[in-house]
Order: sequence, then structure tokens, then C-alpha cells
Amino acid sequence: MTDRPDTPILDRVTRPADMKALSDAELHQLADELRAETVSAVSVTGGHLGAGLGVVELTVALHAVFDTPRDKVIWDVGHQCYPHKILTERRDRIRTLRQKDGLSGFTKRSESPYDPFGAAHSSTSISAALGFAVARDLGGNPPEGVGDAIAVIGDGSMSAGMAYEALNNAGHLKKRLIVILNDNEMSIAPPVGAMSSYLSRLYAEEPFQDFKAAAKGAVSLLPEPFREGAKRAKDMLKGIAVGGTLFEQLGFSYLGPIDGHDMDQLLPVLRTVKARAKGPILIHVLTKKGKGYGPAEQARDKGHGVSKFNVVTGEQKKAPSNAPSYTSVFADSLLQEAAEDDKICAVTAAMPDGTGLNLFAERYPSRCFDVGIAEQHGVTFSAALAAGGMKPFCTMYSTFLQRGYDQVVHDVAIQRLPVRFAIDRAGLVGADGATHAGAFDVAYLANLPDFVVMAAADEAELKHMVATAVAHDDGPIAFRFPRGEGNGVDLPERGIPLEIGKGRIIAEGKRVALLSFGTRLAEVEKAAEALAAKGITPTIADARFAKPLDRDMILALAADHEALITIEEGAIGGFGSHVAQLLADEGVFDEGLKYRSMVLPDTFIDQASPADMYAVAGMNAEQIEAKVLDVLGIAQIGAQRA
Amino acid sequence: MTDRPDTPILDRVTRPADMKALSDAELHQLADELRAETVSAVSVTGGHLGAGLGVVELTVALHAVFDTPRDKVIWDVGHQCYPHKILTERRDRIRTLRQKDGLSGFTKRSESPYDPFGAAHSSTSISAALGFAVARDLGGNPPEGVGDAIAVIGDGSMSAGMAYEALNNAGHLKKRLIVILNDNEMSIAPPVGAMSSYLSRLYAEEPFQDFKAAAKGAVSLLPEPFREGAKRAKDMLKGIAVGGTLFEQLGFSYLGPIDGHDMDQLLPVLRTVKARAKGPILIHVLTKKGKGYGPAEQARDKGHGVSKFNVVTGEQKKAPSNAPSYTSVFADSLLQEAAEDDKICAVTAAMPDGTGLNLFAERYPSRCFDVGIAEQHGVTFSAALAAGGMKPFCTMYSTFLQRGYDQVVHDVAIQRLPVRFAIDRAGLVGADGATHAGAFDVAYLANLPDFVVMAAADEAELKHMVATAVAHDDGPIAFRFPRGEGNGVDLPERGIPLEIGKGRIIAEGKRVALLSFGTRLAEVEKAAEALAAKGITPTIADARFAKPLDRDMILALAADHEALITIEEGAIGGFGSHVAQLLADEGVFDEGLKYRSMVLPDTFIDQASPADMYAVAGMNAEQIEAKVLDVLGIAQIGAQRA
Repeated sequence: MTDRPDTPILDRVTRPADMKALSDAELHQLADELRAETVSAVSVTGGHLGAGLGVVELTVALHAVFDTPRDKVIWDVGHQCYPHKILTERRDRIRTLRQKDGLSGFTKRSESPYDPFGAAHSSTSISAALGFAVARDLGGNPPEGVGDAIAVIGDGSMSAGMAYEALNNAGHLKKRLIVILNDNEMSIAPPVGAMSSYLSRLYAEEPFQDFKAAAKGAVSLLPEPFREGAKRAKDMLKGIAVGGTLFEQLGFSYLGPIDGHDMDQLLPVLRTVKARAKGPILIHVLTKKGKGYGPAEQARDKGHGVSKFNVVTGEQKKAPSNAPSYTSVFADSLLQEAAEDDKICAVTAAMPDGTGLNLFAERYPSRCFDVGIAEQHGVTFSAALAAGGMKPFCTMYSTFLQRGYDQVVHDVAIQRLPVRFAIDRAGLVGADGATHAGAFDVAYLANLPDFVVMAAADEAELKHMVATAVAHDDGPIAFRFPRGEGNGVDLPERGIPLEIGKGRIIAEGKRVALLSFGTRLAEVEKAAEALAAKGITPTIADARFAKPLDRDMILALAADHEALITIEEGAIGGFGSHVAQLLADEGVFDEGLKYRSMVLPDTFIDQASPADMYAVAGMNAEQIEAKVLDVLGIAQIGAQRA
Repeated sequence: MTDRPDTPILDRVTRPADMKALSDAELHQLADELRAETVSAVSVTGGHLGAGLGVVELTVALHAVFDTPRDKVIWDVGHQCYPHKILTERRDRIRTLRQKDGLSGFTKRSESPYDPFGAAHSSTSISAALGFAVARDLGGNPPEGVGDAIAVIGDGSMSAGMAYEALNNAGHLKKRLIVILNDNEMSIAPPVGAMSSYLSRLYAEEPFQDFKAAAKGAVSLLPEPFREGAKRAKDMLKGIAVGGTLFEQLGFSYLGPIDGHDMDQLLPVLRTVKARAKGPILIHVLTKKGKGYGPAEQARDKGHGVSKFNVVTGEQKKAPSNAPSYTSVFADSLLQEAAEDDKICAVTAAMPDGTGLNLFAERYPSRCFDVGIAEQHGVTFSAALAAGGMKPFCTMYSTFLQRGYDQVVHDVAIQRLPVRFAIDRAGLVGADGATHAGAFDVAYLANLPDFVVMAAADEAELKHMVATAVAHDDGPIAFRFPRGEGNGVDLPERGIPLEIGKGRIIAEGKRVALLSFGTRLAEVEKAAEALAAKGITPTIADARFAKPLDRDMILALAADHEALITIEEGAIGGFGSHVAQLLADEGVFDEGLKYRSMVLPDTFIDQASPADMYAVAGMNAEQIEAKVLDVLGIAQIGAQRA
């Protein structure tokens, strides 16, 4: 597909131990080759490119200086870990990144001992590194042992409170711990928040410090050669701040900023830190996302997430789309509503592009709030906007809303505040795998008193649900929708508010009723077609609401059919559990009902295409068909899909 | 009960508007009277005393200077809000605090327009205040309008990442916003973390600043009289830091520290801030928890939470206990295990006393970690301790574990790390009311793959479950137990690990099986006694595990009985939902089974005694009995408990 780059040094490195014999000059070259190999691999697989290119030198330097896997290098989020994977026994599989049965796009404990702590959600690395440091000092002894603990965290991840909680605790415990702040002034979106401005000031406005004055501080850790060469480094090394940085105030030694693409700075600094660090130390490293690959450097998002691409031109090969994405339908619908209601505002936690709110921010900048990677704050901020008379749309991926769960309970639900939760990436999400699956939101929202919980069956339904959320001012309301394209159904001119707690019958049939909650409806319809060929015409219903349930419709379905099967893109505890509770309370089971609830299985499903993941989950049309036949006691010819 | 204090000025104040006519001298006296009234009220009701006494002057000053309820004063946590309630139309009910049908012990929107945003969990106030500030500037117009937004947050609450997320966002948005840092160097437990040390340094080590040098900074906000009187204030006002405080680095103007018990400082500072503040400003106020009431000032916890007491002597009237509390049984059991296994360690999020881990910290200081109010970090830190070969007991209240939910999913469950979750305050908790109810943990944990979820039926079971958790090294495990006393059952010498996924039959009976998960077992047994008198002898079983379920036992119970009823102290989506899924999957409902699931109702239940709250929930013995009779179709004589 692409010519492989020429990589003579890298070819000699299967694992970090192979790097120990390399000279500094060879390590320089190794970095260049690693960059080329990373570009080549991602050109084939697609994935996160810019983050990895930004840490190529840092990756080489860390593995050259420290003794992994005994020393624990913990990459925050993990988008930047592809070069790390290449150097740690996984180069032979690097072109399977994010594919079914291939390497994860994130660090993953079960994949390699060189991934001591998996990631995907942001800002966990300092907590994890501190845990290892403490375990080491207490004599914990996992298979590879524990030596140094090193967190590598981006400036974007520093906006999350969790990172601050960890710094605060680490500064207090005073254990030897290394935090590398990878400052590229760019997470996924341009960085927001006061911390980001602060970091910029640290190196942009601070005058270059005189080393004599600096000597009393963290600079004493600097190796001699580095000090002597300091004048030369002046342009890059804009300031070695001593005293008074936020990090020092929290109990860390602070070292930096240093040029994260200059091996002549990275290697000696890391060696000295390794030799001499005592308590917690923060090394402030400046890098460029997308570094060294022109098309990435020039892209607005610095090549954050890319499709397969042509290495020479950088041109990406996106699959043609057949229908608008759910995300764009949501974003357009909200814009349309916001044009007529100036109380509508929107909150995102560092995902303006992923949630489609970038459009809202352009059109209504004063009503759109990117709070940073700060879901806890984002939820409570939304609650207060609602208390203050606004109509906030708190827009988050299902998996990230987990970060704000207590705030959903305590600040929104208990207070019955009309926050509108737009929950993107509901269900299985494909290449991002288990860490990004939106599996739990229905269970953890629908058990909250007075919450309204909806799921869109298709993109037209989504548009109506946006309108429903605008209109619902009597308590919290959530609607969920999946990643990816819609079904291509006609979109209504305007969304029309749905009646709260009312589902709809899609097709009247006999014997079995299929009650869908969410976009599995299309698979249910496919299954029904296949069943029709076998003489069975199921009734099909779209629940629309997991809460409140459409009691009348569900009891009628139960009364009029031999079997009732619920289907949802979520884990146990959600829609099906609420239906079962209703049926039990009403005594429907007393006399017998063939009831089944199809939910996501009790396992974390590895990345693959969404269709493949749903096959693993047992929720595609064939499997729905098989479930119906099984429930009705109809023998199937041949084995079920070997 | 107690003589009421003499309060001539307070008697003229029903609401803050009544304070506008008072002179500063009268406001001084009002504060003194308010303190006496607070002590008198809490002597009758019990509750949180020290926090309120620490902010008496601040409460008077805020309501005197600002225009509540249009201006929004948001008390973080809410422990300190009793004086506020007295001044805001609730003095006539202040002696019903924390009682059934009485005033909430926290701020609560539904109770008063003077409580613009309820609280109980910590560190939400800055997010809430920012939401109001933004809503104001966008023209949101709730019933009382929106003027200034003022968060009052303690230093302990500053250890939570959420507070930092909000500061970070507020510093970026630059809206007019007032944050009052109520620094008493004491939250519930002595403060931990680097931030706490930092705050101490701000006023303990900083030299008193020269006003000329300071004038360029926040001090320009200081009123003239205050500047002139500065020398006099020198002892209290140890330093007005300018430039370089952490808060200024995050974009706030910083003013302080000032003496929070000196009305001559508070009133002019607040008046000037009100008149002249533009962007976000942080006022650092030093207070003493328990101030002005000797017994509270001298108590180790500064009178944090007290029982009814004698005002003169301070002597508290604790109800005699009949059995050890679940918390103490947990703590003793863990100590016993830790004596023989040096890999056992414990993590608490600022609740060493509440969780009983204070004993662990005394005995094994190097193995006990109080991470501050930082559940997110605490969970991931625990995950890494487990990855590092330790056996961490992550010990949190059910309701507070919600703060770390994403970390439970992402860092513990997906990685299958053997973190032991000791979940205290499961179920309804009494006087702390709905915000502290432990209702959702079973639902949100048992739907996570590979999680083991247990609930203790009594204190002996709890001891066995601690041992079970120590022994279980193959993935995460959680056990939950309630607030309050055990049943007084004999405790075994040592806990013995239970077989994972196996329940137990308590009593063999006929027709109906009662399957309990948790401490409702005692009520089930009471119900069974009452039923026996009516000729019905139910089978009683203790599930022990919500996950994995005891499949064989449950299917046998279903097969052998006409009816099966599950009972649990949790919301829908938990144990009963898992049982229903099993029964459905196994086709048990196909032929008919009288199945019912008794769960907490779909409502937030206000504070009362736990027994009264369970009556509201419909989960006491009489109600279990009624449910059995109803399911079996046995008419009851007379109405069911009118």
C-alpha cells in the first residue's frame, strides 16, 4: 500500500533493552526512523497521528533512559502511544492499529507489560503513577516489579480536576514521582481555560532566567553539560522558572520548559532526573503536535485523528458517506432551535468538534461554553444555567458523562433542574473500542427520579427529540444517539416535540412483539423481513422513552402477544430492566409471558467495526431473528451462523 | 428544653431585607445573637454546629451587603447554612433541622428562594455560581432574577478537582463572580494535600505586604477606611499577597486574607467588592470552626457533627448503642486482616472518621491514604496500587463513590484490577436525607463486566465479606453496608471468605420465597414471623451476591415456589433487575411465576429516621408482609396500614 521507510536502526530495536547499546547519535536517528514508521503505519490504518508525532523524541528518550517495563511510563489518554508501541515489541502488529483483533489505539494492560496502566479517558496518569510509586515504596511486587513511575500528560489533560487532585495528593505524599507535562498548546481542540493561559505565560512571557539565580531551585537537577550549553538553547528554552510556579506551590520541583524535540536536551535532563530526583518533580516539555510531518503540522487539528492517507500528499481517504451523521443532525437541529429561542445555550467538555457544537460556537459564541476536559464542572455549571433561567444542552459522549455522574445525581436530578443532556456515542463505537463504548448511561440515568430518558431510533427521531428537550422545562431530560451515519431517512423541516412517555408502533404483527429502544430498530426491521419469509410477522415498536415508560403500549404488547422481546444498545439495568419491573409489578409474569431482554453482554468488547462489535454483542438482525425463533420454539435449519 | 437566648435585634429580622435598616453596630450585635440562636437550636436538634459558628459574621455581612435572593449566595456543602436559614425566613422552623418534615440540614432549592442552589456534596459552589453569573449576562431570568453570584467554599472543599475545574473555567470566562474562600484549616478531618499547605503558607509565612507595593494588585479594591486601618489589622491580616498566588495565576483577583470574625473588615471589603468588582475575584477569609462556643472550639473536630447537647456544659446526649455499628465492624475486620497481610492498604477521600479508617491510619500510617475530597483520584490511585501488587480497600460512602464512577469503569473494571470497594452508607441514611442516600451503587456497579458485588445482611456477614475481598484477587470486588448499628448478632472470631456467587438459604418454607440482598433481611424475617401467624411460612434466602448471581439457588427458588420476591436497599437496575434478566433468559417467566422486585421507589426521600424513610420507601416488615399477601392473592383484613 505504501512504501515502507528505510529504518536501519529501528530494525535492530524490538524492545527498549535493545536501545541500551545505542549511542546518543544513534538515538537521534532512531527517533527520525520512528517518526517515519509511525507516519507509514497510520497511513495504512488511520488513527491518531498528531499526538504520536509530537512525542517521538520523548518516547525514544524515555525508553533509552528508564528501564521499562520495570519503570512505569504512563501515557495519559494514550493517543500518543503509537511510537511507544513500535518500540515495545509491537512493531510487527503496528499496521493492525484500531482494527478488529489488532492493536488497541490506546495503551492497554492486557496487550503488553510495557503498558502498565491503560488509558483512553484523559487525566488519569498522575493518579496512576502515584499509585505505582506508593506501591513500590510499600513493597508491592507485581510481575515486572516497580521502579520509577512516570506520567506523561498533555496540557489539555491538565484542565481536568482529576489531574489537580492527583498533583495535590502527590505534593503532599512527597514520593519520588516524575510527571512530564507535554505542552503542545493543543489537545483535540484549541485549549481553553485559565490553566492553559497560565502555561503559555510560563514560557512565552517569562524572561529567560539567569542560571545563577535559578540555581537555588529545580535547576540544580540540571546536568552540567546542559548548563554549559544553555546559551545555545536560549531560543527554545525560553525560561526556567524557579519559585512560584503553580506546580511548585503544590509541592513539586519544576524543571523546564525544555524543547521536547531536542534529544540533546531530553536525554541529559531525563538522565539527571533519574539519577537525582527525590520527591515529586514536574518536567515541562514543549512539543509540537504533528511534528515532522508537513500535512499534520499544517492541519487545523494538527492531524489529531486521521483516516488512511497518502504519505506523500497527506490526502486522506475518507469513505463516502451515505447519510448525515447523527452528530451533525443533532448540531443542525440545535442550531435551528437556538435561532428561535435565545435561552438555548450549549456546554461541551473539550469536544466542540466531536459533538458538532463547533457550529453552535461559530453562530452563537456567547451561548456556547467549552469548559475544558471538566465534565464534573460542566454538568453543575449546566445545572446552574438552568436554575438561572437558561435552557442548557449539556452535550457529552456517553462514556465521558460518567465523569459527571455525581453531579447529574446531586445537582441536576435531586434539584429537578431542566438540564438537557445530549448524549452522543451511545452504544458501541467502533475503532475506539471498549473504553469509549456508551453502554451504561441508560442504567445510570433512568434510575434517577424524575429523569426523562430517550433514545433516537433514527435521525428524524433525533431531530424530534431535540425539539422535545427544548420544550421540556419540568426537570432533567436526556436523549442518546450513536456514533456514525444515520439511516438516510427523510428529515422533517422542523422537529416537533414528542409526547413525553409515549412510544410508537412501527408495524402490527402477531405472536411476537419486538420493542426497540434506540437505533437497533433498523436491525429489528431487517430481522422482521427475514422472519416474514418464514411466516412470522412480528409487531415492531419503538419505545422512544426508557423513562417514563409507555405503560399502556407495553402492557398491550404483552397482552396481545405470546412473546415480548426488548432490544437496546446498552448494558443490563436500563430499558429492559424497567420494562421487566413494570411487567412484574403488573402481574404480567404471573400467568406467563415469553419475555426476553436483549442487552449488551457482560463483557467489554474490543475494537472492530460497529457492525462487527454488535455481532459479538449478539444484537444484529440475524441474532434478533434467531432469538425470536428460539423464543417461539421454532427449530432453525442448520446451525445458527457458525 | 433549653432557655432561649435573648435576641432583641434578631427578633426584628425575619429576612435579609429587614437588615438593611440596621447600623453596623447593630449588625455586630445581630451576629452575636445569631451565634447564640444557632447554638440553642442545634442543642435541641443535633447536627452540624462548628461550620455554622465559623461563618456567623460572614453570613450577617453577606446578607447585609448583598441583595438576596436576587444575589445568589451559594454555600458549598451546606453544613454551615444554619445561621443563613435563621436569617432567611426559617427561624420559626430552625428547631426542626434534620427532623422528619423539618428543615433540611443543607441548602435546598425547594425549601427557600434564599437557597438558589442546593448542596450536600462538596465543591460544587464555584461551578454553580459561575452558571448563575453566565445566565445573568445572557439574560436568563428566573423568578427572583439574578444579580451577583457568590460562592462560599471551605479550604477542605478546595481539594476536589471539581473546584479547580470551575476556577479554571471562571478565570477564562472573566465574568464578574465572587468566590469566598472560607479558610478554617479544618474541614471534617484535618486537611490534607498540598493545596492545604499552600493556603497555610499564604498567610502564615508570607510577610505582611507593604501597601504601596500591593496597590497594583487586588488591593486596589480595598476601601479607604480599611487601608487606613491596616496597621491595626496587621496581626490578623497577615499578608495581602499580590501577584503570584495560585488564584491569580488562574485569572482571579485575590483579596486577603481577612479576618472572617471581624465585621469591621468583612463589611467594608464586601461593600467595596460589590461596588467595584469586575471579573472573578477570590476573597480569602480566615475563620475558626466552632468560633464563639467553647465546647465546640475545644473539640477535636470543632463540633463538626453533634448530637443534642447541654448548652452550658456542651455535653452531648448520645443515644445508647445496642450493637456495634457496621462502620466499626468493617474497620475492625480490616485491621484484623491487615495484621496478617502487609499488602492490604486503605484509601479514604477525606472521611477517615466516617469510614472508621482513622483506626487503620493510627495502626498502619504508611498503608493508609487520605487523598482529600478527591474520589476521582482516589479510585484511580487505588487501581494503580492494585496494579502495583497491593490490595487496596477503596473505602467510600455509596453516594460519594458516584464522584469516581468513570474511574471505576475506566481504570478498575476495564482493566480488571482487584480494587476492593468498601461501600459504606448503602441504602437510606436518615438525617442527611436524599443527597446522602446510597441508592444507585448496585445498579451502576453490577452492570460492569467482571465486577463482584456483595451486600452484607448483618455485621457477621460484613466480617466475612471483608475476608472475601481480601482473598479475591481476580478482578474488582465491592461490598456494601448501611449506616448505623448492626443487629447485635455474634461476630465470628475471624472472617471466612465466602464462595463467590453463592447465596444461602435462611429458612425453608413454602409457596413464596423472599430473596433478600442486604440488611433488609431482618425485616424479611420479621415479616415471615407475622406471616407464620397467618399460616404462611415463606422460604427466606440471603443472596449475598448481586453479581455473580447464585444461578442455581435462584432457579431452584423459582421452581419450588409459586412466588418469588426480591428485596434490596437500592434503586431499580440493581439486584432485582439482574434476577429478572436471569429468570427471563432461562424461560422461567414463559410458564408463569409470581415475581416481584421490591426496590427503592422512584423518588428522592426526605430526611427522617431510617425506619421512617424505609416506611416511605415501602420496605419495612409490614410492607413486605403486605406484598406477600397481595402476591398470593390473600385478602387482608382491614386497610393496609392507613
